[in-house]
Amino acid sequence: MKLTILGCHSATPKENARPTSQVLEMRGHLFLIDCGEGTQMAMRKAKVKFSRIKHIFISHLHGDHVYGLVGLISTFCLLGRETPLTVYGPKGVKELVLFQLKLSGAYTTFPLRFRESVDNQPTLLFEDELLSVTTIPLEHRIFTHGFLFQEKPHDRKLDVVACQERGIDVSYYKKIKKGHDMVLEDGSVIPNEELTFEGQSQRSYAFCSDTIYKEDIIPQINGVTALYHESTFLKDREELCEKTKHSTAEQAAQIAKKADVGTLILGHFSSRYNNYDLFKEEAQTVFENVELAADGKVFEFNK
Amino acid sequence: MKLTILGCHSATPKENARPTSQVLEMRGHLFLIDCGEGTQMAMRKAKVKFSRIKHIFISHLHGDHVYGLVGLISTFCLLGRETPLTVYGPKGVKELVLFQLKLSGAYTTFPLRFRESVDNQPTLLFEDELLSVTTIPLEHRIFTHGFLFQEKPHDRKLDVVACQERGIDVSYYKKIKKGHDMVLEDGSVIPNEELTFEGQSQRSYAFCSDTIYKEDIIPQINGVTALYHESTFLKDREELCEKTKHSTAEQAAQIAKKADVGTLILGHFSSRYNNYDLFKEEAQTVFENVELAADGKVFEFNK
Repeated sequence: MKLTILGCHSATPKENARPTSQVLEMRGHLFLIDCGEGTQMAMRKAKVKFSRIKHIFISHLHGDHVYGLVGLISTFCLLGRETPLTVYGPKGVKELVLFQLKLSGAYTTFPLRFRESVDNQPTLLFEDELLSVTTIPLEHRIFTHGFLFQEKPHDRKLDVVACQERGIDVSYYKKIKKGHDMVLEDGSVIPNEELTFEGQSQRSYAFCSDTIYKEDIIPQINGVTALYHESTFLKDREELCEKTKHSTAEQAAQIAKKADVGTLILGHFSSRYNNYDLFKEEAQTVFENVELAADGKVFEFNK
Repeated sequence: MKLTILGCHSATPKENARPTSQVLEMRGHLFLIDCGEGTQMAMRKAKVKFSRIKHIFISHLHGDHVYGLVGLISTFCLLGRETPLTVYGPKGVKELVLFQLKLSGAYTTFPLRFRESVDNQPTLLFEDELLSVTTIPLEHRIFTHGFLFQEKPHDRKLDVVACQERGIDVSYYKKIKKGHDMVLEDGSVIPNEELTFEGQSQRSYAFCSDTIYKEDIIPQINGVTALYHESTFLKDREELCEKTKHSTAEQAAQIAKKADVGTLILGHFSSRYNNYDLFKEEAQTVFENVELAADGKVFEFNK
């Protein structure tokens, strides 16, 4: 599981402070999460292969999370893309894109689908045999949800030596990796644990931006490998959080602690601050394992 | 007259190849011309003061000329701008902006006006005592016009020594600078030429992007100080110009020559080319005074 931060700043985009966008690589998928202005330039810089993006998840329709979307799709058209693309986001995202493409006389060279949400309940957006993506209802000034990306169980790792010693034919290996015991011709059973090792643990990633401090999300994100939680302000400006429906670094850490997450990644910093280390310091008074997002930064989660 | 190129590349935006946008400073005004994705970042980089932009001119609704507009206006809102703003552009530009602002729940903190054009004739868009701005009908895949910025006559320069020698009171100076002769109390007349020098010549700037080779524009732009004319391709790809309704460097130079312009600035380069000097070389086979646009480049025209 690899997370590339393309941008992690709030409000107005700047050369060295890009608005929200990130790419999550999970079990062969490359998911784009949010798409502020300039995302396609940041994608090129981070060498994200455009054609590998087949699903784009938009949390809400504030400009710093979505104003790069039509440009990116427009570029896909210009490049003659053929790979289907699905955009998930709040109601309105479809018209936002299609209206602008229509005005510019553009036509898509690939199947472009939209799945709009209005539901304030966790909703399954995407699922295959390897993972699932579900909305996380958040609370912000406009309809907003985050996303929970969850791996399904990985195969167990084959103990090849043990299998060979027992004379097991390779044609059974796939089934054994799925956790099945081996039934021999004489009816005797070799327990799976004797033929395999523990597989890769199931990783999960919760993206929660933008939102006020919202304890309701804790059961849903409980135990995730990594939580990206917005921390637009420090607690010195907690009153601004209430007004603008954002969170402080301390509040993000409270959520991380109560949900017992592996790593907390802070982002969506307000331009009022120059020293982001203060966000880490504030959060670490509550929760130890805190990382700071930064434009272009890559996080890898192997456990 | 000062022209700052914010971006001068066609199609998809890249870190080092920004889409079309430029700022023209003329007699105290700061006009923004076109607004591709990332324009607000380029404006910050070029230290363009946002509040000085009161008029934005959009040539057409292709993404590489307009996808940065809503983001810029949204930033104006976030910054609490109070200065009125007028956006001039083809029909549709108003809905493009207002629909997205509405979706994001944004409200303008300043008077925002739109003037949409559908006319295929030169149309006066803006005029004050110092200058005028008129559309230049172009021909592209969708409705497109360029813009002609024309200074009105400047004041003559006062010959202060001559005025003092004739004992003329300073209260007459303003009138003399406007070109009036001086009538003394005894009824005698001092011709204006004896009290003033030639003033600054009238400068003008024509922005022509995107368009096919179109001789119809020549009378309108005849004798302009500077002409920005698109040259998306070299003549080795003239057949692409016909198909996509763009121009070659040679065609741009033909227009410059026939319109007897001062300086031809080439821009809107296709990403198919790496060496832009070839555009200059091709154009100079027809017209000598050719400049190449480049992101961040500044042109000053004092004559």
